[in-house]
Amino acid sequence: MPAPSDFTRTLAQLASKVEVRLAAQLDACAGRGADRLLAAMRHAVLNGGKRFRPFLVIETAALFGVTSEAALEAATAIEYVHCYSLVHDDLPSMDDDDLRRGQPTVHVAFDEATAVLAGDALQTMAFEVLASVRNHDDPAVRADLLLELATASGLMGMAGGQMLDLEAEAAQAKDIDVQRVQSMKTGALIKAAVAMGAILGHARQAERDALTIYSENLGLAFQISDDILDVTGDAATVGKATGKDSGANKATFVSQLGLDGARAKLHQTENEALAALEQFGNRAGTLRNAMAFMSSRKS
Amino acid sequence: MPAPSDFTRTLAQLASKVEVRLAAQLDACAGRGADRLLAAMRHAVLNGGKRFRPFLVIETAALFGVTSEAALEAATAIEYVHCYSLVHDDLPSMDDDDLRRGQPTVHVAFDEATAVLAGDALQTMAFEVLASVRNHDDPAVRADLLLELATASGLMGMAGGQMLDLEAEAAQAKDIDVQRVQSMKTGALIKAAVAMGAILGHARQAERDALTIYSENLGLAFQISDDILDVTGDAATVGKATGKDSGANKATFVSQLGLDGARAKLHQTENEALAALEQFGNRAGTLRNAMAFMSSRKS
Repeated sequence: MPAPSDFTRTLAQLASKVEVRLAAQLDACAGRGADRLLAAMRHAVLNGGKRFRPFLVIETAALFGVTSEAALEAATAIEYVHCYSLVHDDLPSMDDDDLRRGQPTVHVAFDEATAVLAGDALQTMAFEVLASVRNHDDPAVRADLLLELATASGLMGMAGGQMLDLEAEAAQAKDIDVQRVQSMKTGALIKAAVAMGAILGHARQAERDALTIYSENLGLAFQISDDILDVTGDAATVGKATGKDSGANKATFVSQLGLDGARAKLHQTENEALAALEQFGNRAGTLRNAMAFMSSRKS
Repeated sequence: MPAPSDFTRTLAQLASKVEVRLAAQLDACAGRGADRLLAAMRHAVLNGGKRFRPFLVIETAALFGVTSEAALEAATAIEYVHCYSLVHDDLPSMDDDDLRRGQPTVHVAFDEATAVLAGDALQTMAFEVLASVRNHDDPAVRADLLLELATASGLMGMAGGQMLDLEAEAAQAKDIDVQRVQSMKTGALIKAAVAMGAILGHARQAERDALTIYSENLGLAFQISDDILDVTGDAATVGKATGKDSGANKATFVSQLGLDGARAKLHQTENEALAALEQFGNRAGTLRNAMAFMSSRKS
């Protein structure tokens, strides 16, 4: 197993490839819409993010011999959904965050109406990218990718999870099912990223099933580590305010299981994810490292 | 040509067919997401709207022998986009409207965060419906419908138009290109509805071109008549506050052309739309009536 630094280098290399494509797609829109809206969309998207969901699309597709170039459009599509959700989650009526990756959030840098519209147009962009022939020459693959991403993003996925999260916070409910809320809010997109890679790779059902177990545990690890960082991290490293969840009396894995309990659960998800990858042998090295990276992340 | 009342009856019949399908689609989500979010989505969608965009999808498809049943899923998809845009446009940070069709808007009936998320999830629903095999068994048709709707909805269409409209209002600009703004904000979806009907009907290029001229003029007529109603209508009939645009010093067709000038332009769009339908002969009777209805609407 390579040192973690090798993994972060792989992640960074793919991230810059994704960033270049995102910039090219947005640049292609210049002069064809509202300049201010495009500027807000660029602000939301071209922010040096880790591009973890695109990475998962690309690396899962690579398990089946699909090149990163062939997976890149689908990879950007899921990043647009992720970015739109951050813009809307940061709004004053939602989580009311002024800072994202050390930069002013969209409604601070622009204004609230522009932030609402930028999120809206970024969501549309995701589906526009997937529907285009530039994404894939087989329309059946395009439609499958679309259905996967849409199902993960809406009422029964990300948006529904954010609603439940807001409700839980408002009620200061300590006994909510954190795992269910987070599996919708954060997990659904991570699962969709892996599933989209499998669609691009024309994976067999048994392979899809194994990848689903992997991605569900990966998503869970993502949220548990986020909750741990909220307690143990500092704002400068994490790049956003910490201590916010505990300050808000929000139900988290740490508040429900304690710090040690959360760490034990994190370890368990890691084991289950790695077991699911066994059938892919050495080919799954990068996906294994992704899981290890998630369990030990500092930001 | 039948009396206008025959047309409004056709429109109402299709609207109730569309409403039944919309309700069924939303009911199928019950218990699978956040209850409050689904309730807000239902509030936004099941409001007795005219369903004019679904009507255009269905009637354009009917030109080519496609049954209303076969066009119904695509018809609901565009209505979800329309409804999402109304929920977000009504937000306090946007047009700040409390009333829609005589009912409290979503952020009034629920709250602002729920309204943002309901709009988001309704947009997702549109693409989910189109990507599903229930919509059409040919994935190429599904992908074409998706691309058409996405292009019309985003930065270069509806969302971009709303941004330009807000900017024009903030600047109290009297010399903005109202026609360009409105062709994006309102016209893009009307054009997409007709184009989606043509896609379902496998229309030839010459037929698509003629239908584009029809739909562009129809969209223009929609906006001109809206501007006229803002000046001449009363709130009870129109179902929303009137006099709002002129009170806000907003550039409209009436403010730029005067009431007579706007009526003359409306008449001109009608003539151009009807000329474009000539090649379809008697089959286009309902689409002709739609144009006449638009020019003479009272609400």
